[in-house]
Amino acid sequence: MSHFEVTYRLVLQQGESLEEKITGICLEQSVELPGSVISDQLKRDVVGQPTDPEKIGEKAYQLTIRWPHANLGGESSQLLNILYGNISMKPGIRITQVHWKTLPDDLLKGPAVGIKALRDRYDIESRAWSCTALKPMGATTDQLAETCYEFASGGIDIIKDDHGLTNQTTAPFTERVKACVDALDRAAQETGRRSHYYPNITGPGAVSLDRYKQAAELGADGVLFCPHIGGLSTMHQLAHSSINLPIIAHPAFSGSLVAHPEQGFDPGVLYGALWRAFGADYVIYPNAGGRFTFTEADCEQVNNRARDAELPFRRSFPMPAGGIKRENVGNWLERYGNDTVFLIGGSLYEDPQGLRYAAQEFTEQLKD
Amino acid sequence: MSHFEVTYRLVLQQGESLEEKITGICLEQSVELPGSVISDQLKRDVVGQPTDPEKIGEKAYQLTIRWPHANLGGESSQLLNILYGNISMKPGIRITQVHWKTLPDDLLKGPAVGIKALRDRYDIESRAWSCTALKPMGATTDQLAETCYEFASGGIDIIKDDHGLTNQTTAPFTERVKACVDALDRAAQETGRRSHYYPNITGPGAVSLDRYKQAAELGADGVLFCPHIGGLSTMHQLAHSSINLPIIAHPAFSGSLVAHPEQGFDPGVLYGALWRAFGADYVIYPNAGGRFTFTEADCEQVNNRARDAELPFRRSFPMPAGGIKRENVGNWLERYGNDTVFLIGGSLYEDPQGLRYAAQEFTEQLKD
Repeated sequence: MSHFEVTYRLVLQQGESLEEKITGICLEQSVELPGSVISDQLKRDVVGQPTDPEKIGEKAYQLTIRWPHANLGGESSQLLNILYGNISMKPGIRITQVHWKTLPDDLLKGPAVGIKALRDRYDIESRAWSCTALKPMGATTDQLAETCYEFASGGIDIIKDDHGLTNQTTAPFTERVKACVDALDRAAQETGRRSHYYPNITGPGAVSLDRYKQAAELGADGVLFCPHIGGLSTMHQLAHSSINLPIIAHPAFSGSLVAHPEQGFDPGVLYGALWRAFGADYVIYPNAGGRFTFTEADCEQVNNRARDAELPFRRSFPMPAGGIKRENVGNWLERYGNDTVFLIGGSLYEDPQGLRYAAQEFTEQLKD
Repeated sequence: MSHFEVTYRLVLQQGESLEEKITGICLEQSVELPGSVISDQLKRDVVGQPTDPEKIGEKAYQLTIRWPHANLGGESSQLLNILYGNISMKPGIRITQVHWKTLPDDLLKGPAVGIKALRDRYDIESRAWSCTALKPMGATTDQLAETCYEFASGGIDIIKDDHGLTNQTTAPFTERVKACVDALDRAAQETGRRSHYYPNITGPGAVSLDRYKQAAELGADGVLFCPHIGGLSTMHQLAHSSINLPIIAHPAFSGSLVAHPEQGFDPGVLYGALWRAFGADYVIYPNAGGRFTFTEADCEQVNNRARDAELPFRRSFPMPAGGIKRENVGNWLERYGNDTVFLIGGSLYEDPQGLRYAAQEFTEQLKD
């Protein structure tokens, strides 16, 4: 019988014993019954098997639990349930590592494209990439297309929709995608260099899939998707449909999963590894020093997990975002390295010399 | 121009000013740009409009923000984004109320069935209902069907799959649903009273919809779905497809959204109101005093929001669960009232006199 392994950091709560807490997780995330009514066969074949816990703080312990492959039933959605279903409602349990190589081979396929094929596809050999967002919500299709044209003329590698652009009447999805693809073409004719447009396809249920198909038909280069609104397993299905448009994953609605240091997931596990496993070619996360609260260590951890060659998936581009100032890109580049896509929005829109100029200044800093 | 309203509890962080924090939310959840680069027209028509904040604690404030209907683009997924997209990554912001009557009429339809039609459908006029779960993961189809038969013979109103039962080889979905429906029929022939079976349809992406259809075709009475794994907007689509099988919503993977008192959602807003708005006929939540950590006040709040006649949706059954002991049901019934479905699992499985006897004792306490 094969197993997969997950490592947890446990913090004991008032009145809790370590043994109870560990046994509780092993039962809760499998048979969901008291041990007293479980047969020896199920205890052996279905219940999680913990390693010896290691004390790592006053009331903190680290341990790994082995879960039978059979419990997954071959489904990615069930992995989410076993990882963090009912224990999401219990305090003092944080997932610090998923041992991806121990999962069944066919459960998760990772990105359909990944860093290497993206570099080949866009013919950008080794430097870091620039990305910006089309905004604001409420702008008309023409205004967004014009913004897109200016950014493309300034040499931005990837121009994505703001994740708040959906199908509002001011800039409906189909009309917007057509206009922005045209804007890229127009800029490319003038500059000889084509940018890449990624519309936001997040919509209710099956609508995301329709938009994914439409995006491909209309000539978009990739898509933006919010997996914690549209569903992580939906993202995985999109990635491994026949469409083959790369996916940027956006963290909207996900923050609570990392906010409390004694619950949820370490940021590197969620945004780096889990999203990558579920098919994200690029993972957006809130960079340190901006208007969100990730530490630099959190960010490094996301970068490492997104790109770690040890994971059995194609590598994903980390995409730090959220208040990076254009003038600091050089510093972040030095720290994060070339396999990074820098997403800068507001700092370009604020430039009094205009979007194109700001885009040029930004992309200049990423040249080889 | 019409607006919808959301009430927040804000807690100021080190170095934060109240005005900055409020303006930050109004911009972040709409245009996502600094106010300095936004036109007066967009400030008026797109950016959130806050009421005057009320001081409710040392660093805590309450206020309501009005958001334009147009920002929603008519999509339930975009409501999730506006409610708690990027601000999920910022500390000190908790959603304490969504003013449902202010939303566009056609955005969310609530439960397709609801308490009243469920009582008519199952011919149970006024008493509280009993529910239990088929377990454990790893049991064979025959074993689960036999368990189902015993519970049905003991008079349980609703027998649902444990949310960990998906499509494992020990009890594949189709085989399990057929066998459990047969078991209910067999018990009904003997007792003259039919229980109701709700299989778990949660699967990756579109698989949930296939299972929803299959469940109806195979004679199930309703389904179980985990909206934070399968997607809230997917649940809404299921509820308002043509299938009309009532939905029990399960809280797997949702706990982080309520765990931190200064982030996420008040439990009543998430499990009571939001799930109801997104189509849950029954909302499972972890009851106070069991193996999870909800307070009684949290539970009362979920009950109230699920059943509140002021909300513009059919009413949902609250379904307290998670370690309710059979012998205490009477106390909870007195507190929660008849429009409640009590979900008891472990306490029945532990009974040395067997499942049927335990089920009888449980249901006896809910009789009129």
